[in-house]
Amino acid sequence: MKKALILLGCPEAPSQTPMAVYSVYKLTSLGYQVTVASTPSALKLLEVSDPEELYVKNKIDIESCLENLEEGIFDLLVGFVHKDAAVSYFVTFYSILNTSSIAVVFERDPELLENYIESIEESTDATIVSARAYHNPTPLRVKFDRALKKLED
Amino acid sequence: MKKALILLGCPEAPSQTPMAVYSVYKLTSLGYQVTVASTPSALKLLEVSDPEELYVKNKIDIESCLENLEEGIFDLLVGFVHKDAAVSYFVTFYSILNTSSIAVVFERDPELLENYIESIEESTDATIVSARAYHNPTPLRVKFDRALKKLED
Repeated sequence: MKKALILLGCPEAPSQTPMAVYSVYKLTSLGYQVTVASTPSALKLLEVSDPEELYVKNKIDIESCLENLEEGIFDLLVGFVHKDAAVSYFVTFYSILNTSSIAVVFERDPELLENYIESIEESTDATIVSARAYHNPTPLRVKFDRALKKLED
Repeated sequence: MKKALILLGCPEAPSQTPMAVYSVYKLTSLGYQVTVASTPSALKLLEVSDPEELYVKNKIDIESCLENLEEGIFDLLVGFVHKDAAVSYFVTFYSILNTSSIAVVFERDPELLENYIESIEESTDATIVSARAYHNPTPLRVKFDRALKKLED
């Protein structure tokens, strides 16, 4: 079975937790076994958002995940990037896993958004899905679906 | 079957959508048939957050809901309050339904939080669940569970 890892950083934006559940659902429907690695605050929101664990079955603390990370244990990396710290996490996980990767970059401020995108482009060959998303998850969702479809083709 | 209505306004805070799903789950487990009435932007986040409708089965636009609202059609009103507009919605729905009501008030700014609480206390006899919540849903979740338990006793 193909394995995917989703990275969640600081949940400042209202669309992060909903989009995280959506991407677990989407990747699961494409046949992936999905693990979500997140910071403690992102984890709490995820637990409240899916109290019966109907969508998100495998959750792990992002630091514990990093400690045991090595090349080959995941086939796909998806990172949610909304802060500088999340850029660093994504680049670190990308370098260790060395596999297909998608960065989902979202930020209301266009300058910050551009900064995050540039930082990721400088350090990785990841597919970048980005939007000036805050409230409205639709642009991110549509672009994310498109990136996955491309990956599967 | 007891019927509950959950009101969702503008989804500025990252904890609103996760807490909305949680409260649907919780009320359903207590035997309520739950309907969520929300603004279009809150609805989009809810759809992404529960793509297979495993938790939230009944969704309606808040304005259409208001048009057909009358006393007796819901046994419990739960309103998420994070903006002035949400205070108005809550008070309006409260006045029409004239039934057990819980206002879940959350806001990072303590002065705004106090304002929302006062406005609701002035116009309703609703149970108020409040927290300076933004990222962390736990205080709200614990207080919400406690308010429901009290209501059920």
